[in-house]
Amino acid sequence: MVVTLGEIAVRFGCELRGDPQHEVDSVGTLSDAHPRAVTFLAESRHRTAMAQTRAAAVVMAARFAAECPVAALITTNPRATYARIASYLYPAAPVVAGIDPSAIVAAEARIDPAAHIGAFAVIGPRSRIGAGALIGPHCVIGADVMVGAQVRLLARVTLCDGVAVGERSILHPGVVVGSDGFGFAPDGAAWLKVPQVGGVRIGADVEIGANTTIDRGAIGDTVLADGVKLDNQIQIGHNVRVGAHTAIAGCTGVSGSTVIGERCQIGGACAIGGHLLITDDVHITGFSMISHSIPKPGVYSSGIPFEEARTWRRMVARFKRLGLKDREQAGHESKDD
Amino acid sequence: MVVTLGEIAVRFGCELRGDPQHEVDSVGTLSDAHPRAVTFLAESRHRTAMAQTRAAAVVMAARFAAECPVAALITTNPRATYARIASYLYPAAPVVAGIDPSAIVAAEARIDPAAHIGAFAVIGPRSRIGAGALIGPHCVIGADVMVGAQVRLLARVTLCDGVAVGERSILHPGVVVGSDGFGFAPDGAAWLKVPQVGGVRIGADVEIGANTTIDRGAIGDTVLADGVKLDNQIQIGHNVRVGAHTAIAGCTGVSGSTVIGERCQIGGACAIGGHLLITDDVHITGFSMISHSIPKPGVYSSGIPFEEARTWRRMVARFKRLGLKDREQAGHESKDD
Amino acid sequence: MVVTLGEIAVRFGCELRGDPQHEVDSVGTLSDAHPRAVTFLAESRHRTAMAQTRAAAVVMAARFAAECPVAALITTNPRATYARIASYLYPAAPVVAGIDPSAIVAAEARIDPAAHIGAFAVIGPRSRIGAGALIGPHCVIGADVMVGAQVRLLARVTLCDGVAVGERSILHPGVVVGSDGFGFAPDGAAWLKVPQVGGVRIGADVEIGANTTIDRGAIGDTVLADGVKLDNQIQIGHNVRVGAHTAIAGCTGVSGSTVIGERCQIGGACAIGGHLLITDDVHITGFSMISHSIPKPGVYSSGIPFEEARTWRRMVARFKRLGLKDREQAGHESKDD
Repeated sequence: MVVTLGEIAVRFGCELRGDPQHEVDSVGTLSDAHPRAVTFLAESRHRTAMAQTRAAAVVMAARFAAECPVAALITTNPRATYARIASYLYPAAPVVAGIDPSAIVAAEARIDPAAHIGAFAVIGPRSRIGAGALIGPHCVIGADVMVGAQVRLLARVTLCDGVAVGERSILHPGVVVGSDGFGFAPDGAAWLKVPQVGGVRIGADVEIGANTTIDRGAIGDTVLADGVKLDNQIQIGHNVRVGAHTAIAGCTGVSGSTVIGERCQIGGACAIGGHLLITDDVHITGFSMISHSIPKPGVYSSGIPFEEARTWRRMVARFKRLGLKDREQAGHESKDD
Repeated sequence: MVVTLGEIAVRFGCELRGDPQHEVDSVGTLSDAHPRAVTFLAESRHRTAMAQTRAAAVVMAARFAAECPVAALITTNPRATYARIASYLYPAAPVVAGIDPSAIVAAEARIDPAAHIGAFAVIGPRSRIGAGALIGPHCVIGADVMVGAQVRLLARVTLCDGVAVGERSILHPGVVVGSDGFGFAPDGAAWLKVPQVGGVRIGADVEIGANTTIDRGAIGDTVLADGVKLDNQIQIGHNVRVGAHTAIAGCTGVSGSTVIGERCQIGGACAIGGHLLITDDVHITGFSMISHSIPKPGVYSSGIPFEEARTWRRMVARFKRLGLKDREQAGHESKDD
Repeated sequence: MVVTLGEIAVRFGCELRGDPQHEVDSVGTLSDAHPRAVTFLAESRHRTAMAQTRAAAVVMAARFAAECPVAALITTNPRATYARIASYLYPAAPVVAGIDPSAIVAAEARIDPAAHIGAFAVIGPRSRIGAGALIGPHCVIGADVMVGAQVRLLARVTLCDGVAVGERSILHPGVVVGSDGFGFAPDGAAWLKVPQVGGVRIGADVEIGANTTIDRGAIGDTVLADGVKLDNQIQIGHNVRVGAHTAIAGCTGVSGSTVIGERCQIGGACAIGGHLLITDDVHITGFSMISHSIPKPGVYSSGIPFEEARTWRRMVARFKRLGLKDREQAGHESKDD
């Protein structure tokens, strides 16, 4: 896609300081962008990189414009404006309507004529695929599944029986939605499987990263509300509910029946316990252990940054002596402390 | 499935306090169950929810029966009895014998006539699939694999060459069993691959969650004993052995050659080192780092619950000063501490 | 493969102390090896096991040879020599040239005649598969992908559009390379997707474990250099660069734009933040939180080993009081500490 800076300024509501006839066709970073590429400045610490940029134009806030050696596209939200420009320059491949001859579609399934069903996809009975939806190669869709309009299951996504996915959501390769939750009742020395009879409801505009897994409810549904963004390799337990526009970074696990509010931001590699209530607008930094509910918005952490191994071992030894000291002090106290 | 409370009481050995002719067809939670649903009370803190329930009946221990506003199904193990009732009300779909025409089955494979082989499944030479086994769509089964009777590989499960899975085990989508372990020998600056020539033996009544991975042994086998339950996204390294009826929650990793005993319960997101010996009946709470062996049954923990970020930073700063203090005190001590 | 100890000694440059006519056909551990198996001694603590071994021969350093009750194959690097001998005894199955009739290969793709394309594989337009490459069953390869000679995608590997994989690399089942990075710009209460327009370049002799995910770059490429070894269930964020011969153990996540040097060794279950610079020859022990750059080679740790739960709770309580004490001492200090 080739477009002039003037056209970009008009289309995305920027003030342009530079040549409106200059053509661009791509995006780049401040340091790597070539003279037909757009880049952006979102943090003031990157101004030194901007001083050297060879980009066609930099999307930026007005206050840095005087320092820009090339054209400036001035906006109040440079990241969002950059995202819109990049989406315009790199449009998603159009969905080619039709069912690949290798796909296996149950007779009772309803596929919108404007949907694409890819190679070796399997669609179960009574499932419905909406207009403009892309069911990529090797997707496995069970029975009674609802896939909304313009959803993209990019490849090798598994939706188990009864799962619903809202419009425009994007699921990356290897995602599994609706597998059984981890529910077992002790029965003597063994475990008895507790049937997982709930479903999974995924809202509109949700994105789910590669190899993330979302369990079906034990009773009632597991729910991701509209606009939720999940990174790769996240595990969502049965009956979890995640509120609208909450974003969770990779490798985080959420145990069963926990409810997470709206607009939360949860870092990577967190371990979030079960049956908790995390309110709206909570930020959790990466590698945190969340073992009780969070009733108040704010920023929360656990996780201790590394040290050189020798120093670290000394810190741990002191930490452990803290416990021992207490034990000594505790003396003859109750066993049941 | 529609059934009367009287029939349930007889079939599952409960004492019924209520109308034996009342019909039920489903399960629900204490708060959401409708008048044709069975629910259960397993923890005394849910008694307030029970007081409001509209369920047909509550499975429960005798001591709470007086407080139950609806029919009570009295039993000594409410969770297990609930699990049995739910399994009865929601029977697993019967396995339809036969091989899907799209599947590719090696000539030398032996498929029991009562097994089901799903769409696009691939079964390698000399592999054997037992009676009543379900090989779901898109499963890839290598050579010389043994799948026991009534096993369910739900969809998109990979069993590499030589893997054995015991009767009635359930493997969820995305599971990989028998990939190479992480074995490399340093050779100058580079790594030399150590061939992974062992296998994987999975016992009977094992359940393995979505996208969990289990490596084959380097020499000798990786083993999951009967009744082991693994949640989603668990990583089991080469030559690990997990004892009967041990349950491990999601996102936990177990490094190579570690032996875990019977009836252990291991929380989610734990990191378990290699070459350890963990005895029977060990409980490990979630997000624990297990870096040495555990010779004694009991409950073990690491992982520090979160705080507000500002408070947390202060705690970490103090923790780190612990190490520094020691260093100062250590003074002229040996470098090799 | 049957071979004499004499032939092994010559082929792998060992000094043999024992019968050169003795035939071997397999490998084993010191304790389990049978009289036709080769084993090895790499750590002196295994000498007691060696004293009992029934193996045909033990690969070992000269200094332990006097204690060996069977034939000794003496070498300066027993692990590497063992790896070479095992590779010789258990050669990888030869790649059978040809395209499975069930595979779907785009007309514009270029498949080397000496490559193998497995059952139900899908190869997109303009992708190139090199000589001797193995594309296993159920692999999904997008458009414009480059797969080098002798690469092995064992089964069910997804390579998204534009990914390049260098010669002899091995990717295990469930690997996803080139899915979108986690890039979103806040836009009011919602998130706007930032197009991920970079690629992924994987060098030669790389190995990637089961269900590991590697995101494509946001702008520019994500890069794994030659000889990198990644274990299972690792997550590599967009624009990460991993230097040559670095090895990372299972379940570790690396956030976007972090650069890791050459010859690093990173333990399992680590959480590595974004936009960091980790220099060459850094070792990080398992379960560490890496939240800032590491400019100096060395060994680094965080992660506190477990204790009995009661002891642990006491340590945590004391740790938390550390923070409170500080807060008390801080008294009327600035709020913005």
